Amino acid sequence: MEEVLVQTGAEKDHILPAINDDHGGVIVEMVELMDPTTFSSRLRSSLFHWKLQGKKGVWIKLPIGLANLIETAVKEGFWYHHAEPDYLMLVNWIPKTDSTIPANASHRVGIGAIIVNNKRELLVVQEKNGRLKGRGIWKIPTGVVDQGEDIFAGAIREVKEETGVDTEFVELLAFRQMHNALFGKSDLLFLCMLRPLSLEIQKQDLEIEAAQWMPLEEYAALPSTQKHSLYKYIGDLCLAKLDGNYTGFTPRPISSYFSDSISYLYLNKQDLNRRIFSLN
Amino acid sequence: MEEVLVQTGAEKDHILPAINDDHGGVIVEMVELMDPTTFSSRLRSSLFHWKLQGKKGVWIKLPIGLANLIETAVKEGFWYHHAEPDYLMLVNWIPKTDSTIPANASHRVGIGAIIVNNKRELLVVQEKNGRLKGRGIWKIPTGVVDQGEDIFAGAIREVKEETGVDTEFVELLAFRQMHNALFGKSDLLFLCMLRPLSLEIQKQDLEIEAAQWMPLEEYAALPSTQKHSLYKYIGDLCLAKLDGNYTGFTPRPISSYFSDSISYLYLNKQDLNRRIFSLN
Repeated sequence: MEEVLVQTGAEKDHILPAINDDHGGVIVEMVELMDPTTFSSRLRSSLFHWKLQGKKGVWIKLPIGLANLIETAVKEGFWYHHAEPDYLMLVNWIPKTDSTIPANASHRVGIGAIIVNNKRELLVVQEKNGRLKGRGIWKIPTGVVDQGEDIFAGAIREVKEETGVDTEFVELLAFRQMHNALFGKSDLLFLCMLRPLSLEIQKQDLEIEAAQWMPLEEYAALPSTQKHSLYKYIGDLCLAKLDGNYTGFTPRPISSYFSDSISYLYLNKQDLNRRIFSLN
Repeated sequence: MEEVLVQTGAEKDHILPAINDDHGGVIVEMVELMDPTTFSSRLRSSLFHWKLQGKKGVWIKLPIGLANLIETAVKEGFWYHHAEPDYLMLVNWIPKTDSTIPANASHRVGIGAIIVNNKRELLVVQEKNGRLKGRGIWKIPTGVVDQGEDIFAGAIREVKEETGVDTEFVELLAFRQMHNALFGKSDLLFLCMLRPLSLEIQKQDLEIEAAQWMPLEEYAALPSTQKHSLYKYIGDLCLAKLDGNYTGFTPRPISSYFSDSISYLYLNKQDLNRRIFSLN
């Protein structure tokens, strides 16, 4: 009897430590160094154990320091789900049914900042790197929204970084969805109108070749603006907004069902308020 | 002299084949099987070679079948950039200056479909899996937009898959940005109004517990709608749109500066048209 108990204990130790997820699967976060042979043996026992338990998806998070275990996991049928600089997430699907493993993040999110001073001049830059390098093309400041960063905050930050100009968020005028951008991912570019709180330009040397306030008419007449429909729309949206006729989306804080953190719902506040007002 | 030429040829063969990117870096796409020792030696020679050439970022794409080479690349200073089911992309930054390696995709993109029939009933579902499982909560159909899929097309597809109802896209009413969703990634949920082209519901059994047309007043009065601000806004937006006062964003096709594929710019068409009309 004692022998059986001991054996059960050893078997239990052999199973990789895992926590349950919300979808009938388990998540293994590897932390300690392990040799591939031991990992292989424990992974096989664990998969058998989880199969008996009716588990579905099995996730293994391997920090970059455990890159020596990736090949073993792949041999056991795991594939890659996503990676960040310091870890790789692998996944496996135990049942015979179709996998319902959620897709990896699919979109990069960027902002384009539309900023006009009280002389009706648009803040424009020329980029030092990338496809526009050395082509002398004037465009609005753009940048990538960080993971975990609000769109409006990302717009204010990027403008400050690239041009030194302080701004406040006014409204989201439009957004573009583009496919086959970096590494086949899709791309969302949110066009934000910001109000300048300072006017002096101090360009960032690493990314920006030149920056200036340019009369809107001059921007609209540039060959690059005429040729590129996004650049042309930016001019049109800008004029439509300045003339006071155009309403875009404004962020409103909302609570989440599942967490304490605040999310933002971007909507046409003016039209929604009008309706609510008319009901009262 | 001949010896030197031979040596040069051999050295050249030893450098891993790479193509230049648009940012002063190189991309290596590994395809052939290679033992880690050979890979290590060739990678070191290659890094030295690229350093002499003044290259900046070095990308290595390893298909999942070459998982045996990851550890070697990590030992040479590479880290993970992103992964898809069948490959891992590693990256290294040669210069002493700060890295300008672009960030990985940061957002998952989903849609919520707001569909009302001519009896002012909203199409709602109960989900079988995830956090709402077994809680009997009625919500609009939601789903994930695939990489490379347009938002409006994703909305139509998800509604068809989950409920069997055919629809056409009307307007994007609002969107929510939420942080710390799946694996710390951020999440964008686009609320799309669709017009039903068929009414019969045929629910998908894998993901959907129940589906029905529910009178808007009944949806608005549900405890879950009252409690959850996003659900409440959905009711408000829906009524604002039906009453004809609310204008959201409509997609307009635009050409890209860099590719032949069509992108879509989502904007307040009504307000922009009014301005353009007033100019003519």
